Amino acid sequence: MPIRAVVWGENHHEQTNKVVADLYPEGMHGTIAGALNADDGIEATTATLQEPEHGLTAERLAQTDVLLWWGHARHKQVEDAVVERVVEAVWSGMGLIALHSAHFSKPFKRLMGTPCNLTWREAGERERLWLTSRNHPIAAGLPDSFELENEEMYGEPFGIPEPMETVFVSWFQGGEVFRSGATWKRGAGNVFYFRPGHETYPTYHDGNVHTVLRNAVRWAHNPAKRLADPTKAPNVPVDKAPEKIEERGPKLHAHGEEGLR
Amino acid sequence: MPIRAVVWGENHHEQTNKVVADLYPEGMHGTIAGALNADDGIEATTATLQEPEHGLTAERLAQTDVLLWWGHARHKQVEDAVVERVVEAVWSGMGLIALHSAHFSKPFKRLMGTPCNLTWREAGERERLWLTSRNHPIAAGLPDSFELENEEMYGEPFGIPEPMETVFVSWFQGGEVFRSGATWKRGAGNVFYFRPGHETYPTYHDGNVHTVLRNAVRWAHNPAKRLADPTKAPNVPVDKAPEKIEERGPKLHAHGEEGLR
Amino acid sequence: MPIRAVVWGENHHEQTNKVVADLYPEGMHGTIAGALNADDGIEATTATLQEPEHGLTAERLAQTDVLLWWGHARHKQVEDAVVERVVEAVWSGMGLIALHSAHFSKPFKRLMGTPCNLTWREAGERERLWLTSRNHPIAAGLPDSFELENEEMYGEPFGIPEPMETVFVSWFQGGEVFRSGATWKRGAGNVFYFRPGHETYPTYHDGNVHTVLRNAVRWAHNPAKRLADPTKAPNVPVDKAPEKIEERGPKLHAHGEEGLR
Amino acid sequence: MPIRAVVWGENHHEQTNKVVADLYPEGMHGTIAGALNADDGIEATTATLQEPEHGLTAERLAQTDVLLWWGHARHKQVEDAVVERVVEAVWSGMGLIALHSAHFSKPFKRLMGTPCNLTWREAGERERLWLTSRNHPIAAGLPDSFELENEEMYGEPFGIPEPMETVFVSWFQGGEVFRSGATWKRGAGNVFYFRPGHETYPTYHDGNVHTVLRNAVRWAHNPAKRLADPTKAPNVPVDKAPEKIEERGPKLHAHGEEGLR
Repeated sequence: MPIRAVVWGENHHEQTNKVVADLYPEGMHGTIAGALNADDGIEATTATLQEPEHGLTAERLAQTDVLLWWGHARHKQVEDAVVERVVEAVWSGMGLIALHSAHFSKPFKRLMGTPCNLTWREAGERERLWLTSRNHPIAAGLPDSFELENEEMYGEPFGIPEPMETVFVSWFQGGEVFRSGATWKRGAGNVFYFRPGHETYPTYHDGNVHTVLRNAVRWAHNPAKRLADPTKAPNVPVDKAPEKIEERGPKLHAHGEEGLR
Repeated sequence: MPIRAVVWGENHHEQTNKVVADLYPEGMHGTIAGALNADDGIEATTATLQEPEHGLTAERLAQTDVLLWWGHARHKQVEDAVVERVVEAVWSGMGLIALHSAHFSKPFKRLMGTPCNLTWREAGERERLWLTSRNHPIAAGLPDSFELENEEMYGEPFGIPEPMETVFVSWFQGGEVFRSGATWKRGAGNVFYFRPGHETYPTYHDGNVHTVLRNAVRWAHNPAKRLADPTKAPNVPVDKAPEKIEERGPKLHAHGEEGLR
Repeated sequence: MPIRAVVWGENHHEQTNKVVADLYPEGMHGTIAGALNADDGIEATTATLQEPEHGLTAERLAQTDVLLWWGHARHKQVEDAVVERVVEAVWSGMGLIALHSAHFSKPFKRLMGTPCNLTWREAGERERLWLTSRNHPIAAGLPDSFELENEEMYGEPFGIPEPMETVFVSWFQGGEVFRSGATWKRGAGNVFYFRPGHETYPTYHDGNVHTVLRNAVRWAHNPAKRLADPTKAPNVPVDKAPEKIEERGPKLHAHGEEGLR
Repeated sequence: MPIRAVVWGENHHEQTNKVVADLYPEGMHGTIAGALNADDGIEATTATLQEPEHGLTAERLAQTDVLLWWGHARHKQVEDAVVERVVEAVWSGMGLIALHSAHFSKPFKRLMGTPCNLTWREAGERERLWLTSRNHPIAAGLPDSFELENEEMYGEPFGIPEPMETVFVSWFQGGEVFRSGATWKRGAGNVFYFRPGHETYPTYHDGNVHTVLRNAVRWAHNPAKRLADPTKAPNVPVDKAPEKIEERGPKLHAHGEEGLR
């Protein structure tokens, strides 16, 4: 069965900015989904901000193996209830790939627990992404480095928690560097951040970027059955303890009482 | 200059439960502060839920090197504005030590980005904490293991992000284990979680626990001047780029425009 | 194409100790290979200390996706040249699974860079392994904990580098705990350590242990083409620099000279 | 009491190459020790390859809190017995700071368990080091970036284990990037790698480099009493088990027998 990917797009500048509309007539989400669907093992669809519940109902998320997220100008319009639903899906085992300006998206910041801030410059400068580790699954098939002739600059310090693995580091023509590909785990879910993708450049038409995105979807996919309740904190009563013990000492909780949270 | 520690206490069961009140007539926060003040290098004071702004005004946090947090029954009463203030202080460089049931406190969950859930049992069973690494600064002066004769059980899986270091692992009489001491960094701030400390047992009167708490305060202390704005994402205009570059390509942002977030 | 696993066995106590020989008439390596071969996606063979080059020629390793290693009494008899070959294969992308007393095997210690020491007791006591993270690929299909009624105890502190992920933590009847499942990356190779497996107990006949071993082989498998030379440190001459630069300043190396190492 | 630092220098090019000798008349080790001694809290001395036991006797190491290591052309001449002594001292709690071409030094490679390879170019190009995290103790007092006008280039992929923290990332004029400051723990010892320091450039006369070195010595210092035997793997007999258990099942080891290793 193919991996079910959903590409979420803010779909704002595609509708309001001619440069972006001309570059991405299908929307950035549409172009990204197309690149994923070129892989027989992936079945990608899209969802956008403008749809009811932003296209991310509980039913939809339950059928999503990996969610890709691109947002920039309308982060604040994403409803908190949908954000929590996405975050819980990640904890349950859904993969999440945050793209470019999604460093400031609500689900990514929520999962990181850090400001996710950086420095930036929109000057169409050259970016060169370097692998830190040859043969990392997310970098499979790539040379040691590849270039994007025009990109927005994102610079360190990047306000993220230390990654599980730093997969790419970018060089920018203007003199900055950035950890452009980084992984984390949150609960049963794999999270990958991938830096390139400013909306006024043809980044999502680039073959190496396509390779990274397809690899990342495969990497982020957790084939295990989704956890039913990733936040439960069950009491294990004395008579269910793995080893036989006797209750002793003063107690706060009455028998059968739920835990405090 | 001594390290300025603030011990934050929910101060609820001390006021409402005779067992807890008898064990901790000064409040758990008072007992913990006393243990810290036995160290000449630490100057500890307290703050509680019931104070205005929970005792954690911006001025107070600006004067706090390390915040210790104990909460259990009243997590939800902690105001979100104070939580954000605490979280930003951590990002700026304040240390945070989350104690026992503070695994479910708002600031800790916010910084972790995970559910922080676990299994639990209140049976007064024996807990034995093992060091994973001899001579870790937080374990300085401790034997390879130490016991607490009566404690609440917390069991794995513990829903945290993989720690920077797992410092203690607990054995429980009833058959469970738990990563009882773990570290993370969030921005410029050091975070430590320490498991023991159920309110109906004399845990905070234990000498080894005192050693851990004092070590942890020293470990969590970042002596650097606090960051003024840990969330800023400054634009670096073309003429301020470290290397000389020329602007090119289409642009989304007008000159001097603020970034989107 | 199935994953090609090689189970390396020291094959010493199977030949010299009646208890072990009776438990594992095919050798522990044979039993483990059998358990792996029950998975259609894995094709497991064996190699032993007694074979020429310990059964691990360069050709054999080149055809090995994942190597499992069990050794105990004869670590020192493993030739250093074979150890280096194994280590380089891991750096190139071969997976390595170190089993039980292989914590003191030459390849594992070499890859960790730490003493890999621990405390131990052979008393046939009960071990209970707990997952730290539900739905981790190595724990797929397992309950939150499982038991081995008779095992050797290994206790913390365990002298390893902080793992990429701690997957299992063991509880022992005698009062100790141990990080029983842990992952690392070394170059392009995935490394997993799995604690249980003392030779006088039927551990490798246990169904949950089989599940872990099969999951671990799948997890450790890096499908990318093996790196040709994982240790090369190539010079990038000025005229091959990604950006045009001019050579300047005093030089140590003559043109075309090899690097020092 | 000040932190006792020993700066180990290969002291080869200082004796054989006029450029290096003119830049570092006291040897690179001498210059580095001088920079450290400008800090009242550090007391730095030197040791060199040419001294008996390379100046690193057991007595000397026992009195060393932090060892800094610079080597390049003569890695192979460092005796393996001294390397093991250094490595065991690190495991016991001594800090180690590997400088520049010490990425290929025996002690560093031994502690990492990886090839530690990279790409390189000696062209006197500009390097700019970026902090990944403001207010990291090793970066205290530094701006977000600082430059070295002439340096050797080291490029990714850098064959190291994923660091505990990546503290600096370098930008190079010729188009490469490199994780220039990275931390690990090995046993009780803190390890830091710092990239700059090619012998034909005045890097060790740079003020920002001095700041990093002094910060790093303070960071690497573990004030705990050195572990007596960091490799011991003690048996815990049944009658010394923390919990009362009875021996059962077949045994491999006779009573009182030493463990196998």
